[in-house]
Amino acid sequence: MLIFANPDHAAHCGRFEMFRGRQVPCHEVPARLDQVLAELERRRFCAPGGPAALREPLPLERALLERVHAPRYLDFLENAWGEWLALDPANAALDALPSVWPVRGFRSDIAPQNFAARMGLFSFDSGSPLTAGTWRAAWQGAACAASAAQALLGGPTEDRPTATLALTRPPGHHAGPDFFGGYCFINNAAVAAEALLAQGARRVAILDVDYHHGNGTQTIFEARADILTVSLHGDPRTEYPFYLGHADERGTGAGEGFNLNLPLPAGTGFDAWRRALHSGLQRVSDHGADAVIVALGVDTFAGDPISRFGLASQDYLTLGADLAGLGLPLLFTLEGGYAVADMGVNVVNVLEGVMIAVA
Amino acid sequence: MLIFANPDHAAHCGRFEMFRGRQVPCHEVPARLDQVLAELERRRFCAPGGPAALREPLPLERALLERVHAPRYLDFLENAWGEWLALDPANAALDALPSVWPVRGFRSDIAPQNFAARMGLFSFDSGSPLTAGTWRAAWQGAACAASAAQALLGGPTEDRPTATLALTRPPGHHAGPDFFGGYCFINNAAVAAEALLAQGARRVAILDVDYHHGNGTQTIFEARADILTVSLHGDPRTEYPFYLGHADERGTGAGEGFNLNLPLPAGTGFDAWRRALHSGLQRVSDHGADAVIVALGVDTFAGDPISRFGLASQDYLTLGADLAGLGLPLLFTLEGGYAVADMGVNVVNVLEGVMIAVA
Repeated sequence: MLIFANPDHAAHCGRFEMFRGRQVPCHEVPARLDQVLAELERRRFCAPGGPAALREPLPLERALLERVHAPRYLDFLENAWGEWLALDPANAALDALPSVWPVRGFRSDIAPQNFAARMGLFSFDSGSPLTAGTWRAAWQGAACAASAAQALLGGPTEDRPTATLALTRPPGHHAGPDFFGGYCFINNAAVAAEALLAQGARRVAILDVDYHHGNGTQTIFEARADILTVSLHGDPRTEYPFYLGHADERGTGAGEGFNLNLPLPAGTGFDAWRRALHSGLQRVSDHGADAVIVALGVDTFAGDPISRFGLASQDYLTLGADLAGLGLPLLFTLEGGYAVADMGVNVVNVLEGVMIAVA
Repeated sequence: MLIFANPDHAAHCGRFEMFRGRQVPCHEVPARLDQVLAELERRRFCAPGGPAALREPLPLERALLERVHAPRYLDFLENAWGEWLALDPANAALDALPSVWPVRGFRSDIAPQNFAARMGLFSFDSGSPLTAGTWRAAWQGAACAASAAQALLGGPTEDRPTATLALTRPPGHHAGPDFFGGYCFINNAAVAAEALLAQGARRVAILDVDYHHGNGTQTIFEARADILTVSLHGDPRTEYPFYLGHADERGTGAGEGFNLNLPLPAGTGFDAWRRALHSGLQRVSDHGADAVIVALGVDTFAGDPISRFGLASQDYLTLGADLAGLGLPLLFTLEGGYAVADMGVNVVNVLEGVMIAVA
């Protein structure tokens, strides 16, 4: 297994987010990824003789990002912090959050000159602070995703790893074609999917096991038949991010039948969750994918502070084994998980579950 | 002139709003309306022998509101504060603001059970705190608008007043069919328009002279030919509420040609503003309306803290005279204006301008 860790992830470090009507310290913090690295170290997972190796990401081409995101959105993200500072140097002490957005019936075709207006045009929540280092961290996270794709399918067949992991922060699965939200700015799983196609894959599946619906990923690929999207998640009638993720969303146009949502009620435990997982795995298997991207959130953990499933740490070993059972090349992107102290164990258990199963 | 003052306006009193990325005290405060009442008193405008009389609003029928707003939206507004408190009794010390919303591609057909999700479903900014008294104040404001319509056209022709004024707070022109925002919850001008039709008017015009585009009013009536909407406002490329108000929005379907936007650059002074006003008045005159609703914001005032036109207090006398020049029954609703100390003088100057012109 090859692991690409974002060297600049800590450059994205928000101070506050709006959460359920209150301003609270950010849940999505650099310590999340540091915990995973520490657990890899503790288990000597990437040490000589261990099952994995840590790598730096390769340089990223913007053209790859433009296969996933609108150029005007990328331009906005790249320049947003500079614009925010130009409005008022005192803004250096604040993160930028949207406060006005285009509701139904409002236009999105004209991007206003006003910065606050563009913040809202390109977002769906005020929980995702845009900071001085957001663009750099998100760019390097996407570089990890692209590198993981190249490493998975780029080499001679006999040298290919079983799995690759993009240790991405900020996460990505809520970022859509031209919007950020849910702590996500660039959709790393979607970037990985396009990178796998660029490596010669004809069909790819994205299996999203984060607690929250992968609304960005679904929106990016909903009209595509070559990239299957499957998501298991908390029922959007009650669970964030709410407005997508229902079972009747099956894809649009040429993508009809290539999106599968498996919403589950809050409180779902591992047995019921695993049954849904197996439905998702069956659909992935039927797709005939050349590789599978797993959008790996571990906020399904019982101790997660903002989510409501009941997985225990050892369940992530089983998840890893079930994923390995597909018998397909696996590419993991790191998504959510906010029980910071348990984050490392839960993520590395998935990886260990994979490696035990294929050993 | 008959003036209907909202007896419960002060029940809506927000603590904080999100404004240009910062949490700041609300701009839309009860003192705004109190200043108008104080100025009416100071000039003895409603005293015996004065040009106007103050009235209490008549009871409002919900069916009239449902001609303007979606029932599910009205249900939400009516119950929102109770839901917010039920989530956490400590919420009594906070106002409710949205923090997540359905961006392009997300669904609005399923209203989530989650309160925060519905806050965002039914809004377009986080500048409009929903408070304990918001529903009561908004309801009574709408009652003033309906009463002003009935008083304008309901009596025998020879007894009808020249003009009526609904002293509404919160304001209304940003509230749309199923969304709040811009300090507005129920669209009082739209309620007045439907009430005028119910009184027998066949055609009505709404002329919005607030600094900010009447995006709610436009959205409510954009497909209608019987209700003309005209708005003079700061250019939405740079000015709030941004995503609507461009000159190319002329109405849709049967309403094609029955919406006129006259965006003006920030910094516009009275002469240029008045030229645009005259264009708007010409369009209103051509409509053959039986009555005209003036959505009266005085945030066009040079001293307004959040707007950027250059009208002086005496210019509002001229505005009143120009409106009277239409020779049509006039119904005013109170919209924006945030230079609180000057609010009374500016509003009453408009009314005095009307009454001098028709004397």
